[in-house]
Order: sequence, then C-alpha cells, then structure tokens
Amino acid sequence: MNAKIHPQDTGIGIVGLGLMGSSIIASLLALGYPVKAIAPIHGEKEIGYKRILEQLLLCEKFNILSAPVDEYMALLTVSAEYDELKECGLVVECIVENLAIKETVFKKIAAISKKDAILASNTSAIPISILQKAVPDPQRFIGIHWAEPAFATRFLEIICGNQTSEATTDAVVKLAMTWGKEPTVLKKDVRGFITNRLMYAVYREILHLVEKDHTSFTDADKCFRYNAGSWMTLMGIFRRMDYEGLKDYFAAYINIFPLLSNSDDISPQMQKIVDTHSRGIQNGKGFYSYTRQEALQWSQAFSEFNKDIFHLAANYPERVNGEHTKS
Amino acid sequence: MNAKIHPQDTGIGIVGLGLMGSSIIASLLALGYPVKAIAPIHGEKEIGYKRILEQLLLCEKFNILSAPVDEYMALLTVSAEYDELKECGLVVECIVENLAIKETVFKKIAAISKKDAILASNTSAIPISILQKAVPDPQRFIGIHWAEPAFATRFLEIICGNQTSEATTDAVVKLAMTWGKEPTVLKKDVRGFITNRLMYAVYREILHLVEKDHTSFTDADKCFRYNAGSWMTLMGIFRRMDYEGLKDYFAAYINIFPLLSNSDDISPQMQKIVDTHSRGIQNGKGFYSYTRQEALQWSQAFSEFNKDIFHLAANYPERVNGEHTKS
Repeated sequence: MNAKIHPQDTGIGIVGLGLMGSSIIASLLALGYPVKAIAPIHGEKEIGYKRILEQLLLCEKFNILSAPVDEYMALLTVSAEYDELKECGLVVECIVENLAIKETVFKKIAAISKKDAILASNTSAIPISILQKAVPDPQRFIGIHWAEPAFATRFLEIICGNQTSEATTDAVVKLAMTWGKEPTVLKKDVRGFITNRLMYAVYREILHLVEKDHTSFTDADKCFRYNAGSWMTLMGIFRRMDYEGLKDYFAAYINIFPLLSNSDDISPQMQKIVDTHSRGIQNGKGFYSYTRQEALQWSQAFSEFNKDIFHLAANYPERVNGEHTKS
Repeated sequence: MNAKIHPQDTGIGIVGLGLMGSSIIASLLALGYPVKAIAPIHGEKEIGYKRILEQLLLCEKFNILSAPVDEYMALLTVSAEYDELKECGLVVECIVENLAIKETVFKKIAAISKKDAILASNTSAIPISILQKAVPDPQRFIGIHWAEPAFATRFLEIICGNQTSEATTDAVVKLAMTWGKEPTVLKKDVRGFITNRLMYAVYREILHLVEKDHTSFTDADKCFRYNAGSWMTLMGIFRRMDYEGLKDYFAAYINIFPLLSNSDDISPQMQKIVDTHSRGIQNGKGFYSYTRQEALQWSQAFSEFNKDIFHLAANYPERVNGEHTKS
C-alpha cells in the first residue's frame, strides 16, 4: 500500500475543539493548512473559536506568522457535520478519553472520509491497537500525539497500533517533518508512550526518596531545573552519556540499578494530595500553594518560556550525524 | 556548635586541579574569593593554571566579570604545600575518586586547617559518612557537589554524612546562596545523590524500551530534548505536576508503575558499547559516532548552550512561593 496524503490541498480534519484540539488546529492554520474542524459538542464551536484565536495571537507574538491573524482564521471551517471531512487526506480525533465515545466518532469519520485518508487519534490514554479496531481499514489508522502548545513544541509522538501499515507511519513521519516537528516513532503502543513513561520512572524514584525523607520535593525541583535542565534541551538522554564519556555510567548502573525503587505503591504524600482534592495551579492547592495571581504568573511564564526555549533549541547543531531539524 | 566561615576574608582552599577542581576555582575567583589551590600531583600546577584561565575567559564571554581576567587570576595562589590552607575557612577536596588517597589528603588538610574550618569533598562516588571518619572533627565535614562548568550552573548538591552537624549544613547552604547557587540538601548521602539517581531511573527504563525494540535511542533523545526539555528548566518535577493538574498523574501512576522496568541487569546494547571501548565524544564512538570536528562542535555548543540557558533561567519567576534565586 502506498499511502498518499496531500492535506495542504485537501485540508486536515480535526474532530474536537477542546484545549488540545484547538491548539492543534491553531498550529496547522499557522502552517497554512485549510482545517475542517468538527465540533460535536453543543457550545464547543464558540469556545473553540476563541481558543484558536488566542493561540494564533500567541503565534503572532512568537513571530512565526507571515500574514495577519485574520488570514489564518479564514482557513478554518467549523461545523457539527462530519460531512465536511469528506475531502480531507488526514483526520485527527481529539475528543474526550473515552473508548466508547471515540469508537462512535471513528465510525462516523470512517463512513464519510476518503478511501485513502489517514485516520489518527491524539489519545494518550487508549491503546491505538484497540482504537483501530473501530474502523474498516485499520492499516490507515495511527496515533499522533502533540504536546501543548502544539505550535511551539517540536515534539510529536507517532504511535503504531498492531495493524498500522509502514506506509501510513512513513507518510505521517514525512508530513510531520514538514510541520517543523521532530517526530518520534513508537513501534508499539507502549503504555505512557516514551517521554511520559520515562518521567514516571523519575516520579517513582523521587516519591520514594521524598517519602524516606532523604530530600524534599522543592529540592528535587531545583535539581532538575538547574542540573538536568542545563543540558536536556541540547542533548537528550543518550547523547548526554556520549558527552559525559560513557565509561563511568556503566559502573554506576551496576551499582545503582539495584538500589532504585521498584515499588508499585503510591506514596502516602501523593495519596494525601489526591485525597484533599488538590488540582495544582487549577485550584491553588498542590505540592506548592498558589494565589490566583501566582497561578496566572506561572501560566504566563510557561508561555514565554515556550517561546524562548523553542528559539533557543533552534540555535544548536542539529544536522550533525544526520539529525533532522528545521527551525 | 555555631559554624562560622568568612571565606571572603580568609580565602577558600581547593585541593586538586583536575577538570572539576579547576572549574570550581575559576567560579570562586569570578566571585571575588582569594583561592588557595593545592596541586598535589607533579605537573598539575601548569595544566591547572591553563584550565582556570580558559574558564575565566569563558566567564568573561558570559559577561559575568566586572574586571579584567588578570585581576581575577591575581587572587589565585597555587602551591604543593598544604601549609597554604591554614587560614582558609573552607577547604574543598577535588582529587581522584579513590578512598585511600582521599583519606590521606584529608588527614593532611585536617592537620593544618583552622579549628573551625569546614572541610568538604566534591566526590560523587564515595559516601560522605565514610570519608568524614578520616578527620578528627567529622561534624564540620560535608559534601559539596558542583556541576561543570561550575560558574555557569546554579545547581549545587550539599550532602550530609551521618555525623555532619546542622550548623555546618546551614553555613554551607547560606554561603552557596551568596555564590548565586540554588543549593539542594541531601539529608543522607544517598547513592547517586538526587539528579543522577533520578536520571538512572530514566536510563533503566529507556534501555529496557530500546532493548525491546519499542523505540530507538535517537527517538528517546528527541523526546527528552523537545518534550521534557520544553519545561524542565522552568518547572522541575513536582511543579510540573501542579501545572499539569495533578488529577491524571495519580491514575497514571497506578497504571504505569507496575509496568516499569525493575531490572538490575545492563542491557546487551549497553554491554556492547562498553565492550568495544566506546568513550562517547572522547574517542568518537558511542551511541552516536563523531568525527573530531563533530566532537568539537558538540563541546562548543554545550558551552554556548550553558550561557544561554543560564541567562534564560534567570528570566523566570523565582520568588513565587518563597523560592530563592539571584541571577
């Protein structure tokens, strides 16, 4: 099978105008794609428009637009009718993480979409191998997982289900590279994907160390901000080993792997956080506490930081050893 | 006991002029401290001078000096005689990671240093609780662990041994804050300390995923560079949970902790790397391969990136919730 998509001609379909859907739509509009958005939920259309506009205004602030925001908004069609998707070469589902609802939505998408369209889910919770059973041609079904804000992160995980064809994977990887992404491919839909799963390994270990009172969560934050943070964006994980010299890592692994936490349990401190309905900056209660102003300050800081780190990452050698990047 | 140190009057002693010792000396000179350096190894003095000068020239390039480099170099005394340490309020050992040699060196330091001087080791391999047994007053003995380049990282781990007094810990924390560091305290000398130990948890998991062919090491690097790297320097670990909303983490932990690798074994891929004497960029062979020019390119990029991320980190809200930072 030779999967071909020409979404820049035919547009990309996005189903769901939640936070992530809106962010993805804005990033595709900013790239010049016509977007057919489906808002299945009543009232979602208006909120979605507002969110997409906000994201495009951020794009403008980041200096990644070459025309006024209005011209990008003009590329967008929002409708409640799946019929709008019939010309799209790629349709991405971004709705609530509920298997039954997703299955219904994918049946509707499959019924209307082109025979060679690629169907994708932005899910981070439901295995692609399960979701793809809902469509008649599971070979053309794949996971595409953005990070928020979609226009400002080079990160993109592409997740193969059991039945996803290589041609589909290749086509999506190629497409993502034209979006300025650095796509990573999961050959199997591993739970938690890659980044999240690796971070869960970090959380398991640090929750253990904090529970044992060897350190505090504030100090753990400092360590990662000022140590891991000082090389992460430049090097990643394996390059770091190469850079540091490799020799000592091997000895350290032999000594330290047996000491790491293997516990499946949630630490009492984390349990307490959950029991007290802490939602982090959303309600001001979390590992730290936040006034409304502080919560706002963190949101603004994150937006600014995204811009800075996005441009910073673009300044560093990317084509050494055949690595791909466009800035 | 009330530990008092006035190193800016009496100078700081550094024993060992290797890569790390030279880097620490340069960072202290850049802060205006007189430094008494002891070079126990023949020929180390000349190489050390060269390294320190190179680091100070980098400081100049980073715009963190307020006078010509020569004036900072004039604050430095290098000698083979431990006698030079007798007025120092703080003496830091930065020699080879060998217990017997360190014990000999600390006996010499303790014999000459002031009664209330704090003695410290920059070790990342030998437990402070063991090292401190070598000196007559283990209460005033502590671990101080810099990251390289010492002048450009806010990271500093302070490690308590079993016998380290609270007054000693407090004094070193206060001092480190005047150095523009964000010190983190390890109440117990946990193997691997904090950042390294957390990164070992990452390595254990990713080596497992790569071994199972679920992903590749190049893709793992991309994930961490472009996802974790896009928030790490701003938020650290726990703040990230607060920011993302906390609710979903708990559910994810319950599902994913039991799936994480608990293996103590080194993966065959890593074993092969070691067996083929791969030293990373040092000899061009590692997870990636490097020509000499590429190795040099990575070193230069890391130096530049340090400057950029150092200044970038300083631009973000630091005093929210009582966090300390000076830029």
